[in-house]
Amino acid sequence: MERVAVVGVGMTKQDEHWNKSIRDLSVEAGGVALKDARLEGKDIQALFVGNMSAGRFVGQEHMAALAADQAGLLPIPATRCEAACASGSLAFRKAYLSILSGEYDIVMVGGTEKMTDIKGAGAISALMGAGDQEWESATGLTFTGLYAIMARAYMNKYGLTREELALVPVKNHKHGLNNPYAQFRYEVTVENVINSPLIADPLRLLDCSPLTDGSAAVILASEEAAKRFENPIWVLGSGQASDTLALHNRQSITEIASSQIAARIAYEKSGLKPDDIDVAEVHDCFSIEEILAYEDLGFAERGKGKDLLLNKDTYVGGRIPVNTDGGLKLGHPVGATGIKQIIEIARQLRGNSFNQVKDARIGLTHNIGGTGATALVHIFGKE
Amino acid sequence: MERVAVVGVGMTKQDEHWNKSIRDLSVEAGGVALKDARLEGKDIQALFVGNMSAGRFVGQEHMAALAADQAGLLPIPATRCEAACASGSLAFRKAYLSILSGEYDIVMVGGTEKMTDIKGAGAISALMGAGDQEWESATGLTFTGLYAIMARAYMNKYGLTREELALVPVKNHKHGLNNPYAQFRYEVTVENVINSPLIADPLRLLDCSPLTDGSAAVILASEEAAKRFENPIWVLGSGQASDTLALHNRQSITEIASSQIAARIAYEKSGLKPDDIDVAEVHDCFSIEEILAYEDLGFAERGKGKDLLLNKDTYVGGRIPVNTDGGLKLGHPVGATGIKQIIEIARQLRGNSFNQVKDARIGLTHNIGGTGATALVHIFGKE
Repeated sequence: MERVAVVGVGMTKQDEHWNKSIRDLSVEAGGVALKDARLEGKDIQALFVGNMSAGRFVGQEHMAALAADQAGLLPIPATRCEAACASGSLAFRKAYLSILSGEYDIVMVGGTEKMTDIKGAGAISALMGAGDQEWESATGLTFTGLYAIMARAYMNKYGLTREELALVPVKNHKHGLNNPYAQFRYEVTVENVINSPLIADPLRLLDCSPLTDGSAAVILASEEAAKRFENPIWVLGSGQASDTLALHNRQSITEIASSQIAARIAYEKSGLKPDDIDVAEVHDCFSIEEILAYEDLGFAERGKGKDLLLNKDTYVGGRIPVNTDGGLKLGHPVGATGIKQIIEIARQLRGNSFNQVKDARIGLTHNIGGTGATALVHIFGKE
Repeated sequence: MERVAVVGVGMTKQDEHWNKSIRDLSVEAGGVALKDARLEGKDIQALFVGNMSAGRFVGQEHMAALAADQAGLLPIPATRCEAACASGSLAFRKAYLSILSGEYDIVMVGGTEKMTDIKGAGAISALMGAGDQEWESATGLTFTGLYAIMARAYMNKYGLTREELALVPVKNHKHGLNNPYAQFRYEVTVENVINSPLIADPLRLLDCSPLTDGSAAVILASEEAAKRFENPIWVLGSGQASDTLALHNRQSITEIASSQIAARIAYEKSGLKPDDIDVAEVHDCFSIEEILAYEDLGFAERGKGKDLLLNKDTYVGGRIPVNTDGGLKLGHPVGATGIKQIIEIARQLRGNSFNQVKDARIGLTHNIGGTGATALVHIFGKE
């Protein structure tokens, strides 16, 4: 089986970029990735772009052709992929398969989103495009509301306390302190979290990922093409799965079945198991989801996810550090998120993360769309 | 090189479907395709969906997971691809590459759009998401306006008359007469076209494709898996290319460079040339674009496209029949269009089209996004 490597990475700061458009951000991230790989635009054979909703956020569909156009990559094929907040990882997987198909040797995958050009209700409404329009959006549910339902069910079933749930943002804010690309850089305490404004009971402001502008890009190379690059980071496994859009149709709302299936496929393809993972980026759009991810990915037994926080296992220095860049909590430009997760894992395996995990050799990314109607898991390794 | 075949096709009527939602239409098309292939849902390993703008048309992103969900295909991977009006062909090409990668043996590709749940200005505004938001949409340009600029430039440069331009819808309405899936089924004359309401000079109402609700689906199989199917239609070549979103940045506005490049790639991959094509479906969103397509695809010399109409070469019975189902003129559910084109070519090569081309063995589809920022060309053949 042919192998594929990540050979270049680049991203913008995650921020409210009032002076930059989505095209500016996209070009900036792609340019940094090219420079990192020591490539020029003419070396790129195809572009894949993850974007959730530029149509609603900024009135622009057709984002992949626009990005190729603005970046001077024409006339290469440009493909936008969308699966809500998993759009970045989805684009990554399609780019990966396009190399495995033999069609291309070197491709760029970007993720991009500009979420702050519309405000408040407009952005919340656009994001609800990830949920079931007939059964969820139309009834007035928000994503914080959906995850609040999941959080409450989990707390009731497994005895998770409100204070324990707060340990997720406490850890991620601590990790983000050293990350110059993070949207916020300050520590928070359990008291800060549980006293922050209530958004949808039991979730509070500091449990929620922010609205973020940002882009991220990586360059992929075939096994043959990767020989000319230093420090290739290999894709060892890739899994994708789907579930119902509407939360009420799930067999369980205290776990994400699609995450479990995508993880099982990625583990099988790589021949690895949860214990082999040295560092992971998981989808912490709301605090509860990081705990579910621990369990869905096999890092903890069902109902025991909180132990990883109580024992500081998922802190840098712990057994299995998670979200070493601060995670989605410190920036969630939805279409870009999957790519920025992959970039942090690449940094870790290259040995140049802002919160370096000692001797990290195997890393995992976990990215979901909506409440998990789409899930993608990727496993990476160094030589 | 591994080969890939189309082994099942299905579509809804192209219409204003007031009593069906986008999920109903998607499931209907997929169900017909499964039945046509004599498969069950459990045989499908992955779903690809082309959709341009359900986010704006019906408030729903995440369309691929939704379609998998509604069709009972869970938990298979579901991927939405978008490149404006070329979304269907884009999804088809990604599905094709996914089989070539060795990841899947049997996949479904759908295209879907529900355009009539918002009306008038809302739909026009959503469609302009295919153009350049900063330079085109924001200035008040519409797609009819953009194609009117191209039409006027072409008419001035090559001496095409208003009456000659009308021969495109005259032909396509005649072809559509026998197509039960067409949105409109009546013939029009040159006089009808040139006396229909002016939309953007020189384009009139009968030069414009309509707003359409509709879905279409095909099933693809690897060479090995295709052995169990009767009448597989083989993908002989696939090409994709990009150009600037904004029309004013093009080197020429009287031709579509991306169409030419995508066609060149598809011809090269298939080892075929324009003269080998027995029947074609081309992107006639507005009358002028069918004439540009004749030339960009190599069916006619530059400036001579009209001759194919004057000589009735592109009528059924002519040298190279084009848009034998009536084309986009008789239904353009944007995300579904690329797939419905492929379905008509599959019908022609199976020998069961409503306007059967005698002894058709090689067919071509040509699908573009916006004014050609994306173009895809596919060439198909029977055994």
